Amino acid sequence: MKVVFFDIDDTLLDTSNFAKLAREVAINIMVENGLPLTFDEAYTLLNEIIAQHGSNYDQHFNVLTKTVFGKENPMLIALGMITYHNVKFALLRPFPKTLDVLIHLKTKGYKLAVISNGKTIKQWEKLVRLNLHHFFDEIITSQEVGLDKPNIRIFEQALERMNVKAENSIMVGNKFDVDVLGGINAGMGGILVNSKLSKEEIKKIHLEYDDIVIIDNISELVDYL
Amino acid sequence: MKVVFFDIDDTLLDTSNFAKLAREVAINIMVENGLPLTFDEAYTLLNEIIAQHGSNYDQHFNVLTKTVFGKENPMLIALGMITYHNVKFALLRPFPKTLDVLIHLKTKGYKLAVISNGKTIKQWEKLVRLNLHHFFDEIITSQEVGLDKPNIRIFEQALERMNVKAENSIMVGNKFDVDVLGGINAGMGGILVNSKLSKEEIKKIHLEYDDIVIIDNISELVDYL
Repeated sequence: MKVVFFDIDDTLLDTSNFAKLAREVAINIMVENGLPLTFDEAYTLLNEIIAQHGSNYDQHFNVLTKTVFGKENPMLIALGMITYHNVKFALLRPFPKTLDVLIHLKTKGYKLAVISNGKTIKQWEKLVRLNLHHFFDEIITSQEVGLDKPNIRIFEQALERMNVKAENSIMVGNKFDVDVLGGINAGMGGILVNSKLSKEEIKKIHLEYDDIVIIDNISELVDYL
Repeated sequence: MKVVFFDIDDTLLDTSNFAKLAREVAINIMVENGLPLTFDEAYTLLNEIIAQHGSNYDQHFNVLTKTVFGKENPMLIALGMITYHNVKFALLRPFPKTLDVLIHLKTKGYKLAVISNGKTIKQWEKLVRLNLHHFFDEIITSQEVGLDKPNIRIFEQALERMNVKAENSIMVGNKFDVDVLGGINAGMGGILVNSKLSKEEIKKIHLEYDDIVIIDNISELVDYL
């Protein structure tokens, strides 16, 4: 029995791109409704706040209005949040080839699971909204383990939960250090996808780790699995 | 200058009814997707959890699955939450006559504000989704004041925020003790709407408080203001 572990964000789903578009629309609406900044000023400020507090923090718009007005503006916060979520959920879908690849892996007899840095219910929510959760036997999140990837314990716990030996498993993700190197250090195989690394960076990785597969698009997984 | 203060839930919006329908659909979906209870068992359990933790608690489905399985089931929690919110926001609208009444009051020169027991951003969210927030100069919530209605301080703080004397203001709400008596105790006028009290209960109130107006439907406000 072999198990393929996937990262979610920017591996199965184009999360960063949807989030970026949703943030742009939310800022636009907030500026139109009284936030006294230009779009560029407000968007830059929001990105600074996200960089400072992390993307899983759920009070970005609270901090934004507090920074601008000296105290929170609940109307603008509500408007920003509603707009952000409506746009994000309207856009949320898997990368075009994700479903084909998941179906291919199931027909080949692989078991599938997810290892994700994030909040448990939020990550399930993404998969449930897209009906992707039927493909995966387990979702292991950093929130429930109490440790983020690339900590080896999250990978070890995932292997235990799936009752599989590391050498019979592969970690697929878009971040080299967090996903792939994390998995490799736990004894798993590693496939890097959507990494957006330069040719030189990829060459360097191949020199150091000759067993890591690097692909541009998730559709290429079928050539290796 | 006269100010009319409104409660939101079950006064401007049919909140309890929408929430009930949304909970029914959510429980239905959870049972269909593996919650090992009948609909009636699960719905009864959910209502017990809501009674215990209050309707503003945001982990009802977490507690529900933990009670049933001994630990949380994140897939069912996510499914329940998505369904609940989708249905609730699909149904959310003001009582049929709410807009007519708000427009009437504005044309009569009244200033309008909200005094609500609830979370600040969640209450703004309801008004913003319905574009009702344009009618109101201020929303005062129990969360920001740190005290729930009928505590006199929340009414006093609302009067300060609107810069109006109590005798020039009226509190409109669906709960006699919480909204109307609370307002009366702060020196405001009081109008009870949608109370669903029996004729005897209403008679009793009229005997004790001869200045309280009691109406069935928000549309009758126009007869008094």
